[in-house]
Amino acid sequence: MDNGGAGELLRILRDGRPRTRADLAAISGLGRAAISARIEVLLEVGLIVPVSDAASTGGRPSARLAFNPGAGLAAAADLGATHATVALTDLSGRILLETTEGLEISRGPEDVLDWLVMTLQDQLETMGRPGSDVVAVGIGLPGPVEHSTGKPNSPPIMPGWDGFDVPGYVQQTFDMPVLVDNDVNIMALGERATHWPDEDNMIFLKVATGIGSGVISGGVLQRGAAGVAGDVGHIAVSNAAGIPCRCGQTACLEAIAGAPAVAAGLREGGVEAITASDIVSLVRSGDLTAIKGVRQAGRDIGEMLNMCVSLINPSLIVIGGSLAQSGEHLIAGIREMVYARSTPLATQHLNIIQSKIGPDAGIVGASILAIEHALAPQRVNELTVALQPGGHRNTFLPDMDHITRAS
Amino acid sequence: MDNGGAGELLRILRDGRPRTRADLAAISGLGRAAISARIEVLLEVGLIVPVSDAASTGGRPSARLAFNPGAGLAAAADLGATHATVALTDLSGRILLETTEGLEISRGPEDVLDWLVMTLQDQLETMGRPGSDVVAVGIGLPGPVEHSTGKPNSPPIMPGWDGFDVPGYVQQTFDMPVLVDNDVNIMALGERATHWPDEDNMIFLKVATGIGSGVISGGVLQRGAAGVAGDVGHIAVSNAAGIPCRCGQTACLEAIAGAPAVAAGLREGGVEAITASDIVSLVRSGDLTAIKGVRQAGRDIGEMLNMCVSLINPSLIVIGGSLAQSGEHLIAGIREMVYARSTPLATQHLNIIQSKIGPDAGIVGASILAIEHALAPQRVNELTVALQPGGHRNTFLPDMDHITRAS
Repeated sequence: MDNGGAGELLRILRDGRPRTRADLAAISGLGRAAISARIEVLLEVGLIVPVSDAASTGGRPSARLAFNPGAGLAAAADLGATHATVALTDLSGRILLETTEGLEISRGPEDVLDWLVMTLQDQLETMGRPGSDVVAVGIGLPGPVEHSTGKPNSPPIMPGWDGFDVPGYVQQTFDMPVLVDNDVNIMALGERATHWPDEDNMIFLKVATGIGSGVISGGVLQRGAAGVAGDVGHIAVSNAAGIPCRCGQTACLEAIAGAPAVAAGLREGGVEAITASDIVSLVRSGDLTAIKGVRQAGRDIGEMLNMCVSLINPSLIVIGGSLAQSGEHLIAGIREMVYARSTPLATQHLNIIQSKIGPDAGIVGASILAIEHALAPQRVNELTVALQPGGHRNTFLPDMDHITRAS
Repeated sequence: MDNGGAGELLRILRDGRPRTRADLAAISGLGRAAISARIEVLLEVGLIVPVSDAASTGGRPSARLAFNPGAGLAAAADLGATHATVALTDLSGRILLETTEGLEISRGPEDVLDWLVMTLQDQLETMGRPGSDVVAVGIGLPGPVEHSTGKPNSPPIMPGWDGFDVPGYVQQTFDMPVLVDNDVNIMALGERATHWPDEDNMIFLKVATGIGSGVISGGVLQRGAAGVAGDVGHIAVSNAAGIPCRCGQTACLEAIAGAPAVAAGLREGGVEAITASDIVSLVRSGDLTAIKGVRQAGRDIGEMLNMCVSLINPSLIVIGGSLAQSGEHLIAGIREMVYARSTPLATQHLNIIQSKIGPDAGIVGASILAIEHALAPQRVNELTVALQPGGHRNTFLPDMDHITRAS
């Protein structure tokens, strides 16, 4: 059966707005008969539902249909250098159950992924849902990933992971699509899905121990030829001239504006600080040395972002990561340099702001990665087969505000 | 009628390879009946044709079908600062007739576009083809363009053009889609379509009086939020520190590596040069001062490209524009800096080469811009209506090698 049209109807309804059959015909350009056949398929597996209309009291079924994020689950994992989070979400990326633990990525792929799979099984049991309710698994890793195969590509802080078949290993337990990407890329996906669905050209910049970015151009997350697009931490900036970086080069942005470098600068100024959270606490307590240090880091980051603005012409730059918690002082330094140097046209409609989603960016983004794959129009056939009718599904309308935590 | 499937069949066949109905069913996933109905529509307007099979002598119609680039025409215009080219091409971007004239863009939109329209009418008359054979018009302009509206956006060297409705003006004569873009963007499209159809992450860098680039990420030409993506000529580089640029800033790449700056450097070294072509002649004649100057320009460009490599991770950087005619000396300087500084992963599979299409990049790209729009799967309905059966069309298979010139 040709379900191309069903995928298109689902794509239209995924913005959460209920629509009538006439609305769907007008937007999709499909005929009335084609619409009816395709709606039936989607209703059968619960991906769309009739909306209970408050105004209707006559008992007639509502004429409006809506996407039902409760028709299935997505599994998400955000694996960092020293901690790991696993969650189950609905099909809109809403977190239903979340578990976070201290876990060193350097323990190697088998240990870490065994924990991931076990945690997911526990979560499914807690919720009383079968594994077949999960449409896909999304995983974020702290290093470069070849997105097409899901294999880490020479990751510097992940011994044992280079070239490891992450999807294949997880699929031994969960026989479904497994999508893997870099942690900053999934943060960009999470930030966009929750707060900026209409921004087609944006950069999500993570400022923490390392500095990296996720680039969305033309509405699509860009991974580049080898999966290392957005790797901006080792771009040379003038203030870092001569300063050695952990990558083996000198003059890298990270070597002067990453959290360890900023902390070292504060210690030279007589202020005790080691981690990003030390710096953030100092800034929040009004420590002048810390405020000056963070603002200067912002300027150095801004020098690098100038080039990004010229090259990809974004309308939004979102600053996230632990050092971004120091708030407006960092952003002010960034803005100072970007607006001083970039061309008027490139900055005419440019916003530079702090991340709105905050620490959940990664886990929500991993869920979005899985959902975007499973619900892509060309895959609706597979999805409607996987979501057999008769399984028990929750039915509710999208709501990103209420988040339940298990940890 | 639902022609979504017809568009998909056309998309598959546009690579020029003939296929059987069974091939098309296997690739598209459409059923046999759906394939037949859609093939009939495409055959009727001549967009696909049965392939005359050399092996077949029995008079039976061939079982293989191919895209027919002769089913219609595309009109293309490449408008530069001081010259203009207009061409008619087939639906594969092959140039059928081309006219180039000296024409100052500063004469304003009405004068320039009147010339464009008149030249197109002359070309159609020469070829004995009606205007209804043209599926769309593609136009490249030497400044930023808001691609969605086709209006120039504060172009620095185009007095009178700011916000001018280019498509609306041309449509007074040619009632069909008119696509407008920046000249470097269309060069990127032309280079890719003719030589690198499988490169999904590439940068086309134009080095001439100005320096600019067209960025293709994820297989799509990226225009950014305001249409100025790829505007890399005003990124700061270290050797340009303190040097004023025509844009009002200092330290811009263009101020040290654009053709006028390189020529000025040669004059200081006692060598007479003013234009890019002077420099190219000197380099070709083996002048050491010129060779050194061009190589240094390459290094300065390479410093800027390092940042592009980190941010978008391309697998190909193509160097075009008049100064690129100086060949390997420029490229050698670029490679020297990019390979010295970029991370191993980002340069593992990176090629940096001279433009292969050369001066035709712009006009072929303008044609591709028009064709990609008119032949997009979602527009096949409009196209099959526009291409009424009974019109006289030439029928031949794709062949990009033979180019006919009228000028």
